[in-house]
Amino acid sequence: MKLYGYFRSSAAYRVRIALNLKGIAYEPVIVNLLKGDNKTDAYRALHPQAKVPTLETDEGDVLIQSPAILEWIEERYPEPSLLPGDAVARARIRAACAIVACDIHPLNNLPAMGWLRERLGADDAAVNAWYAHWITQGFAALERMIAPAPFAFGPQPTLADLHIVPQVFNARRFSVPLEAFPKIRAVDEACAAHPAFAAAAPQNQPDAT
Amino acid sequence: MKLYGYFRSSAAYRVRIALNLKGIAYEPVIVNLLKGDNKTDAYRALHPQAKVPTLETDEGDVLIQSPAILEWIEERYPEPSLLPGDAVARARIRAACAIVACDIHPLNNLPAMGWLRERLGADDAAVNAWYAHWITQGFAALERMIAPAPFAFGPQPTLADLHIVPQVFNARRFSVPLEAFPKIRAVDEACAAHPAFAAAAPQNQPDAT
Repeated sequence: MKLYGYFRSSAAYRVRIALNLKGIAYEPVIVNLLKGDNKTDAYRALHPQAKVPTLETDEGDVLIQSPAILEWIEERYPEPSLLPGDAVARARIRAACAIVACDIHPLNNLPAMGWLRERLGADDAAVNAWYAHWITQGFAALERMIAPAPFAFGPQPTLADLHIVPQVFNARRFSVPLEAFPKIRAVDEACAAHPAFAAAAPQNQPDAT
Repeated sequence: MKLYGYFRSSAAYRVRIALNLKGIAYEPVIVNLLKGDNKTDAYRALHPQAKVPTLETDEGDVLIQSPAILEWIEERYPEPSLLPGDAVARARIRAACAIVACDIHPLNNLPAMGWLRERLGADDAAVNAWYAHWITQGFAALERMIAPAPFAFGPQPTLADLHIVPQVFNARRFSVPLEAFPKIRAVDEACAAHPAFAAAAPQNQPDAT
């Protein structure tokens, strides 16, 4: 299995954690977004949005979009489950994921921030305020939805944890205050001590700078 | 079952279509976003983000976030399937959904556009350019991923169709050119002729203005 990613991509980071939690070996393929590796015709043939991650399975299927890739991993490799419980429990986990994957991350992604700078003349302060706003809004909701024990939804990591950890990484990188989110910080701390999360961290990737 | 929604909300529109396709009766509860119905303490107690939709099940469970609600509907009411096929086929459908739900819609949502106007001084032309950009980018990828037959992924509607149709509605509302997307337009046309989609359309809701 090949995972096309970039060390700092949140979406690739999520998938790395999931593969590690499932004990699935994969070959990392580095796509340097800052150098435009994703804009080549060869990469666009794999991913029509020229984003990361892309997962190429052992059967040669090419999968894109982290929410879809994570559900595929869960269906194809059900143990240990990252969506444990009944349908309602799974919906609560998926809702936490969607807050990060829909309502925080896309707004703070490179293309959106590039547009703010280039088309709307936003300076660093304005971009940082935008960045912090979506994290703060989303985390305020998440903080009400989780109950660290020690992971977001209980004694085992779920898809929620592997969305929270990369988003906390981004928040810290941009100095977004996290004092108001003790539960989120507790989850992040529990995950940091888990080898599957540690091995997936940006600083531990071959392309880390 | 109660669906808290707003006629023009894309995310609520998706859930209405899914419930109709499954033949599930529900009571619509109108949350007028322009009047701030979602900002009341009572509504915030249901939805920590004060967004729509919220689904209250017959068992009294309160579910938020359309991606999570749609997966719950699919798990709880499996027939007719909105995620047909094997794990790879399902991943392709979910990837199409995520392009709309993550990479288009959150960037074009009311809070993001409000920020552009109020904090970055964007005028109508700048906001419309932003709005059109994310639709055009996402649709360009989607156009390569679907093969109308007549629905996006075959002879029956899937979760992909119920993401595409509300996004096309939004594109038309903001006069975003769709000439470059004949497959997306064909899917939208096929869905328009389907009673489950027609009954869910914004103009057919009790709160339509």
